[in-house]
Amino acid sequence: MATVKLLDDNEAAPLAREVFDDIRKTRDTDYVNNSWRAMANHPDMLKRNWEKAKEIMGPGELDPVVKELIYLTVSIMNDCEYCIHTHTHFAKMKGMTPKQYNEMLDIIGLATEGNRMMTAMQVPVDDRFKV
Amino acid sequence: MATVKLLDDNEAAPLAREVFDDIRKTRDTDYVNNSWRAMANHPDMLKRNWEKAKEIMGPGELDPVVKELIYLTVSIMNDCEYCIHTHTHFAKMKGMTPKQYNEMLDIIGLATEGNRMMTAMQVPVDDRFKV
Amino acid sequence: MATVKLLDDNEAAPLAREVFDDIRKTRDTDYVNNSWRAMANHPDMLKRNWEKAKEIMGPGELDPVVKELIYLTVSIMNDCEYCIHTHTHFAKMKGMTPKQYNEMLDIIGLATEGNRMMTAMQVPVDDRFKV
Amino acid sequence: MATVKLLDDNEAAPLAREVFDDIRKTRDTDYVNNSWRAMANHPDMLKRNWEKAKEIMGPGELDPVVKELIYLTVSIMNDCEYCIHTHTHFAKMKGMTPKQYNEMLDIIGLATEGNRMMTAMQVPVDDRFKV
Amino acid sequence: MATVKLLDDNEAAPLAREVFDDIRKTRDTDYVNNSWRAMANHPDMLKRNWEKAKEIMGPGELDPVVKELIYLTVSIMNDCEYCIHTHTHFAKMKGMTPKQYNEMLDIIGLATEGNRMMTAMQVPVDDRFKV
Amino acid sequence: MATVKLLDDNEAAPLAREVFDDIRKTRDTDYVNNSWRAMANHPDMLKRNWEKAKEIMGPGELDPVVKELIYLTVSIMNDCEYCIHTHTHFAKMKGMTPKQYNEMLDIIGLATEGNRMMTAMQVPVDDRFKV
Repeated sequence: MATVKLLDDNEAAPLAREVFDDIRKTRDTDYVNNSWRAMANHPDMLKRNWEKAKEIMGPGELDPVVKELIYLTVSIMNDCEYCIHTHTHFAKMKGMTPKQYNEMLDIIGLATEGNRMMTAMQVPVDDRFKV
Repeated sequence: MATVKLLDDNEAAPLAREVFDDIRKTRDTDYVNNSWRAMANHPDMLKRNWEKAKEIMGPGELDPVVKELIYLTVSIMNDCEYCIHTHTHFAKMKGMTPKQYNEMLDIIGLATEGNRMMTAMQVPVDDRFKV
Repeated sequence: MATVKLLDDNEAAPLAREVFDDIRKTRDTDYVNNSWRAMANHPDMLKRNWEKAKEIMGPGELDPVVKELIYLTVSIMNDCEYCIHTHTHFAKMKGMTPKQYNEMLDIIGLATEGNRMMTAMQVPVDDRFKV
Repeated sequence: MATVKLLDDNEAAPLAREVFDDIRKTRDTDYVNNSWRAMANHPDMLKRNWEKAKEIMGPGELDPVVKELIYLTVSIMNDCEYCIHTHTHFAKMKGMTPKQYNEMLDIIGLATEGNRMMTAMQVPVDDRFKV
Repeated sequence: MATVKLLDDNEAAPLAREVFDDIRKTRDTDYVNNSWRAMANHPDMLKRNWEKAKEIMGPGELDPVVKELIYLTVSIMNDCEYCIHTHTHFAKMKGMTPKQYNEMLDIIGLATEGNRMMTAMQVPVDDRFKV
Repeated sequence: MATVKLLDDNEAAPLAREVFDDIRKTRDTDYVNNSWRAMANHPDMLKRNWEKAKEIMGPGELDPVVKELIYLTVSIMNDCEYCIHTHTHFAKMKGMTPKQYNEMLDIIGLATEGNRMMTAMQVPVDDRFKV
């Protein structure tokens, strides 16, 4: 249960409805998911986040699947249940293979363990790795 | 300053020296960096971590640069100074372009903000995103 | 489901019951919420935490709503479901307006993104900001 | 040492220089601090972050000092050295008193301990606190 | 609901079934819990993690209960619901007393508050504590 | 460099000096370390934290070395540089062996990797592990 109301189209302010419409058009779907309906309580935030997401997750030098893998990795590190479910779904929709998913999990496991070991022993950066 | 001694080749136990040699051979370099010299105080851990790293960061379905981007993302989320410096370096050595780096930063910024908003409002997962 | 029993008044030790009574009196309510009933398994901890909370969240130079906003911000950063729900509730009871809530969310989003960017690029502190 | 170059005015792209100029004008100072000079390597990110910061940290319903306290709280929770130094400085410049600072520290200590206890015991949210 | 299928013995690949059998034998039980059934989607990871867990959590210089207390402490700090439930259970099975559990909670509370205060004020390490 | 002044005995308020004296007496040393000198800017916090630390880290059912291992584990998970250095030192002073230290590191690595895998795949708690 959210701590705010998830606004349907009738409850949302005009600015929020405009964003809903752009989400529908951009994603070619009728469905507007809960994240946006929660943010609609704060239309300025909704608009700013949607436009930022549209730009950053859109075409670039990184492959769309890779972008989702990075988004998912951050969400796992932040332990965000909502974001883990949705971006695992989005990554699959954009073509993530089971092997790519497993490789991502392996790297997260390897890196998070390695990070803690370096921190635990306060290992100093080698001079040659300083820019 | 580390909380453990960074062991040079003479100080390291035989098992640790074997790992040092394999690092040199695998990476085609004479240099063994501080992370391994710190872990050499605990040869079993050194061996297990090196073999895991060699396997996981080696050839797979994900591009070597993408593997480094995911490793770097985890390190940024864990705020590991040592790991951020070394894996930014490794990612560049493996061909990361400035634009790819910027896109990674953008996604980390977008995701970590989005994660906190979903958590703040405790937004429930949409039924359609449940597996 | 908790990993400990939530103790009712009959199950709680005398020291814990004293704390329950002080919670009721201080908050002018009959209701003792789950956090205290969980901590009642460890009466010393219950007493220490309740007295600390009563002192710190009581009158001071910061407004009661501001105190709750800071508490809520910490809870969001720690991803504590229980604490997010209760302190969103407490903040509203103490007068938090929807606009204040939105401004807090905006600042959390801005800061958490900015924090990660500074960490990612390991930006050094400007001399003028050093005390 | 940063992992990117801190760009001076001559090295920055035209879009980044425009942002530098707006920072100088908005803050009525000649000094552009390291965070912006690091982000200048990625002018789009620089512009987006500066405009967001200007808007969110500007006049609102929350007092400017309170906004800085929330920003500082997030930075402490994320363990961002750069951000802790700069925003402790900014909070003082905007009028934070020693007592307000101490109250903020007390609340962070109280909340972060309470958060971990609730998480450790997996305490369920009381029905009355659900929206 | 998991984002992957929890594989039963018939669905698991031969390598995963071998691990399941070793879990049953090592723990002297018929029950293979969900963590392993989730990891079975990626048999290499399952095998690596199980063998590491068996070795690290097995006999050593630290008492089995102490090992579980450290595992549980990490899980609480990472806010891992699954791991908090299972390792609270395992710690009890290995003989953790209520008083030991309470002492662990007290130390987590004390340390996490102290950590944040040191970070908030950026307290430098005393020369005498540097190795 | 700290963001607050580290107060020497002459600068500290009478209440803070009393705590300094109790630290000296309790630890049988002339040295009062930086953490307390930073907290001395806020004598109430200093007193509360010192008394809590004295009680919690004092004799109990857990061995003094085990208490330090748990404190150190929390500090590593929170990435607190000050606390990692001091509590590695304290753990050694109280008798932590190199092997115990290595076992602690192994468990932190194992648990933090396992935690992230369970979170990544959102593995549900087995019914039998629910209390």
